[in-house]
Amino acid sequence: MQTNLRGPSTEVTIAPDQPTVMIGERINPTGRKAFSAELQAGDLSRIAPDAQAQADAGAQVLDVNVGAAGVDEVALLPEAIQLVQDTVDLPVCIDSANPDALAAGLAVCKGKALINSVNGELDRLQAVLPLVAEFGAAVIALCMDDSGIPATPDERVTVAENILAAAREAGISPEDILFDPLVMTIGSDHRAGLVTLETARLLRERLGCNLTAGASNVSHGMPQRDLLNVVNLTLLISAGVNAPICNPLKNGLAVRAVNLMLGRDEWGMEYITAYRATPK
Amino acid sequence: MQTNLRGPSTEVTIAPDQPTVMIGERINPTGRKAFSAELQAGDLSRIAPDAQAQADAGAQVLDVNVGAAGVDEVALLPEAIQLVQDTVDLPVCIDSANPDALAAGLAVCKGKALINSVNGELDRLQAVLPLVAEFGAAVIALCMDDSGIPATPDERVTVAENILAAAREAGISPEDILFDPLVMTIGSDHRAGLVTLETARLLRERLGCNLTAGASNVSHGMPQRDLLNVVNLTLLISAGVNAPICNPLKNGLAVRAVNLMLGRDEWGMEYITAYRATPK
Repeated sequence: MQTNLRGPSTEVTIAPDQPTVMIGERINPTGRKAFSAELQAGDLSRIAPDAQAQADAGAQVLDVNVGAAGVDEVALLPEAIQLVQDTVDLPVCIDSANPDALAAGLAVCKGKALINSVNGELDRLQAVLPLVAEFGAAVIALCMDDSGIPATPDERVTVAENILAAAREAGISPEDILFDPLVMTIGSDHRAGLVTLETARLLRERLGCNLTAGASNVSHGMPQRDLLNVVNLTLLISAGVNAPICNPLKNGLAVRAVNLMLGRDEWGMEYITAYRATPK
Repeated sequence: MQTNLRGPSTEVTIAPDQPTVMIGERINPTGRKAFSAELQAGDLSRIAPDAQAQADAGAQVLDVNVGAAGVDEVALLPEAIQLVQDTVDLPVCIDSANPDALAAGLAVCKGKALINSVNGELDRLQAVLPLVAEFGAAVIALCMDDSGIPATPDERVTVAENILAAAREAGISPEDILFDPLVMTIGSDHRAGLVTLETARLLRERLGCNLTAGASNVSHGMPQRDLLNVVNLTLLISAGVNAPICNPLKNGLAVRAVNLMLGRDEWGMEYITAYRATPK
């Protein structure tokens, strides 16, 4: 199964056994105090350099989230998306909890965007799926619903199947959905990693869909976060997550290393090129 | 299936879904010029501190190899093993191409040792299996034979099955064999990693045996070897390799991170303890 996204003039293909597609996570105020304050002041000057740096580090899709407290996302999100696409020719991943902001973003976005995100909650399905269909976008679907985040891989897959059915009914085909098996903080439950990995394997096996995951969530509160994130990314990709949301500035070379070890980088050219481009 | 090794007074258990057992690779002159020269001069002073440092970094078994050019291994290997076991209470992995040296090492070794290694070559089977049986040892079995290193996972598993049959005939039970799917240099064949991982999965699935692998071989000649080694170790462990031969001083925390992410470290205690003990 092949998920195609488009920027102003580029196309990005996400498919099993293809090199991993990195979705750059940096344009997001969560955990970034300075960026948060800038967004609250309507200052978007950080966005263009952040977009360029992530593209240089190998991101092929850029998440755009301006959801700091007090920000009018309906006004600011389209502006941020335009800034990103004026800077780099990449598809965007439009990231907001506000469906009106998603719609405003989709209206100005060039190419075929990814929406972040829908889940199995009825309200959210009803608000987001029509936008996906109307704009011919793709969408990230989180394996959780009105009952919360299921504890077992089987239950998470059931939520995914429900979302898949609702999407079909809305005229959205399975290749336009990237499922997210949900990465939880390992510090609060040492079996969390195992549940995520098993969910990823089951999603790939039963639904055949492409997968994303927020790879950096796992390490909150733990020492040596970078090491845990590399290990987690490696395990996720190996379990079938082929479009992780991550920080390409920190994990770009690691993702290429995984591609290389999984036979997805002929002669290691991508790995070596990325190494040469990495600031030493 | 459970492989038990013993030191002077400790027991080490290797089993699926248990925390990964690190076999420390450092006591080996390959690629260590200074150590090589010392061994050639009969100087074993580096061995005790190397043993202690690896044990401190979490190695639970120590490989002992004194095979530098011109060294009389039959004389030196037993001496090195005694030094190691006088320093740390761990099982040893007796590593030599010379069967007489293996026999001499086994004769002085305390507990139940691991022999490194046998493979499917007839000469080697005939020389090594009787030693394994006589001393009640365990053995590493490389998936190669008189025809060389098979190119495909299926052929490597066939070699493993032949070794298993020969071992049975010699009175050695499957739990006393650690199979090695063979890690090759990724720089010379970008599909090498995939073949190794698939071999590991098939060995675990078809034979149910415990697995080892020399995890550091993969990255020769590539930039950022440490990153490639961490990624490779993560993939190997995830594919079933539960007793990798590695450098615990470099990879000790990474192996604990993998254990944590695979749900084999309750509350992350091992990971956090190892982090605290790591020199910063």
